[in-house]
Amino acid sequence: MSYKDIVKAYEVLKGTDLKDYGSDAFRSEILTAYRFAADLVNRAKRVNLTSQVPGKSYFSVRQGKRTSRAINAGLFEESKTTVERSFCGPVKTKDQAKAMTRAAYTIAISVCAAIDINKSNDQKTPGTFFELLVGHLMTRRLNVSPQTEIQILNLESEKRLPTDFIFDLGKGHRKYHVPVKTSTRERVIQVWAHQRVLDGVYGVGQIQGMLVALAETKVEKKSGTVVEICLPDQWRIYQMFIAQMKAAYYLDVPDKYAKLGETRPKIEVKPLGDIFLDDLDS
Amino acid sequence: MSYKDIVKAYEVLKGTDLKDYGSDAFRSEILTAYRFAADLVNRAKRVNLTSQVPGKSYFSVRQGKRTSRAINAGLFEESKTTVERSFCGPVKTKDQAKAMTRAAYTIAISVCAAIDINKSNDQKTPGTFFELLVGHLMTRRLNVSPQTEIQILNLESEKRLPTDFIFDLGKGHRKYHVPVKTSTRERVIQVWAHQRVLDGVYGVGQIQGMLVALAETKVEKKSGTVVEICLPDQWRIYQMFIAQMKAAYYLDVPDKYAKLGETRPKIEVKPLGDIFLDDLDS
Repeated sequence: MSYKDIVKAYEVLKGTDLKDYGSDAFRSEILTAYRFAADLVNRAKRVNLTSQVPGKSYFSVRQGKRTSRAINAGLFEESKTTVERSFCGPVKTKDQAKAMTRAAYTIAISVCAAIDINKSNDQKTPGTFFELLVGHLMTRRLNVSPQTEIQILNLESEKRLPTDFIFDLGKGHRKYHVPVKTSTRERVIQVWAHQRVLDGVYGVGQIQGMLVALAETKVEKKSGTVVEICLPDQWRIYQMFIAQMKAAYYLDVPDKYAKLGETRPKIEVKPLGDIFLDDLDS
Repeated sequence: MSYKDIVKAYEVLKGTDLKDYGSDAFRSEILTAYRFAADLVNRAKRVNLTSQVPGKSYFSVRQGKRTSRAINAGLFEESKTTVERSFCGPVKTKDQAKAMTRAAYTIAISVCAAIDINKSNDQKTPGTFFELLVGHLMTRRLNVSPQTEIQILNLESEKRLPTDFIFDLGKGHRKYHVPVKTSTRERVIQVWAHQRVLDGVYGVGQIQGMLVALAETKVEKKSGTVVEICLPDQWRIYQMFIAQMKAAYYLDVPDKYAKLGETRPKIEVKPLGDIFLDDLDS
C-alpha cells in the first residue's frame, strides 16, 4: 500500500475512453484509488484547523513537511464500507442523495489529501481525478457519455473547440454543459464565458449549464484557519451579463452560494447528490 | 545598488493614486526601477536560448540557481540613455513609435528579469509592475487617469465591480477597457468575458476593449528552448461569440496573433508604441 498505488489507479482512469466513464470497471477503479488514499490519510497525523466558516469544522492531515487541504469533519465518512455502499447504491430518496454527497465528498477529498501529503504543489492530479469522478457520476445520472469538444461553424473555416464535459442526450433532448472545478475563486468567470460561447454556437437555452465543484475552502497557512472564498456578487453579475447557468452542485456547499437560489438573478446551488433527484429538464 | 532598491521604487509606484499615473514623478519612479533592474541584469550571466520562434532570438540571465524569463535580443535596448530618451520623448512618427515599443519592452523585461533572478516563483510583482507601466503609458496617451471599478445597476441593489483599467474620456466620448497581462495563455477568455459584462452594463460599442500584453514566450526548462504559446483559433471564437475586442497591443508581438488583423473576425494586434499613432476613436 503506497502512494504509487493511487497513481496507478489514476493512470488507468485517465486512460479510459469517455464512452466507458459509466462502466462498472471505471467505478471500481475510482474505489481502488479511494481505498489506497483512505489508508494513507488514516496513517497521517490529523491536525484540527480553526474554522472561520460558520457551522463547519475542518481538519488537515500532515505527513513530514506536507499538509493537506482542509477536510470537512462533518462530511467526511470514516467507514470505507459505508462510502462504497452509498457510492454504488441507487439514489432515489433524499437520504440516499445525502449519503451520495457524503460518499463522493469522502472519495474526492481523500484522494486529493493523499496527493497533497505525497507530492508538493501538484494541483493538476487532484483536479483531473475530481473531473474523472464527476464524469462517472454524471454519466450514471444522464445515461450518456460525455464529449469534450464541440464543432464551431463559420463561413470560412470549421473548427473544434475543446470544452468541459458536454452531455448530449440526442435529438429533441436537452444538452448539458458541465464544467468541473475543485474550487472556482476568481477563475469562475471562465464558466460563464464558455456557456456564452455554447449559447452562441447552439442557441440560447439549448445547452443547460451546470457547474460541479468540490469546495471553496482555503487554509491560511500562517494562522492555520480555514476560510471559504466566495464571490456571490460577481456570480450575480456574470449571471446577468454573460450567460445563464442553471445550477451549481457542490460536494461541500458554501452557504453564501446556497443563498443565490433565493434572489434574482437565481442560481440554484445545491449538494451534488441532489442532482440524482432534480428534474434537469425543467 | 541592490534588489531592494527595485522593491522600494515598486512600492512607491504601487502606492500612487490612480489620478497621478500620468505624472512626471510617476514616470521618474518607473525609470528608477528600470535603472536598478538594468544594472542587476547587466551583472548577471547571459545565457543564449534556442528559439523556436521564427525570426526572433532570445536570451535569459542567470544568477545562482535562478534563471530569468526569455528576453528578446532584437527588442532589448542595451543603452539606458536611449531607453530613457525614447520613453520620455514625444511619439508622433513611426520611428518614435518603434523606439517607444523598444524602450517600454526593455523597461518591462528588465524589471521582470531582475525579479526572476532575485525571488523564486514571484509572478505577482512582475505582473503588477507591468500594469503600472501600462497605466502610465495609457494615461499619457488618453490624457485621462484610469479607474479600476465600475458601477453595476439593477433593480434591487447597487454594486461595484472591480475591473481592469477603464479610461473614461467624459460625456460624448468613448470609454476604453484596457486589461493588462504579462502573458495571456488559457486565461485570455477572461478578457472577452469582462468586455461582455461592460457591453451589458454600458451598451455594446460604448466601451472599446484593448488588451495590452508583454509577450507570449515560454522557456521549456529541460531543453532551454523558447516557444510562443498562441491560441489564435480560440481568440477568433471568443471574438465571434463572447464580445468584440477592438485591438491587442503587445511589446513583443507574436506573429500568429499579428495575422488576426488580416481575416474576419478581425482583431488588430500591434506593437504597443503604435497606440500613440492609432486613431482610437474609429
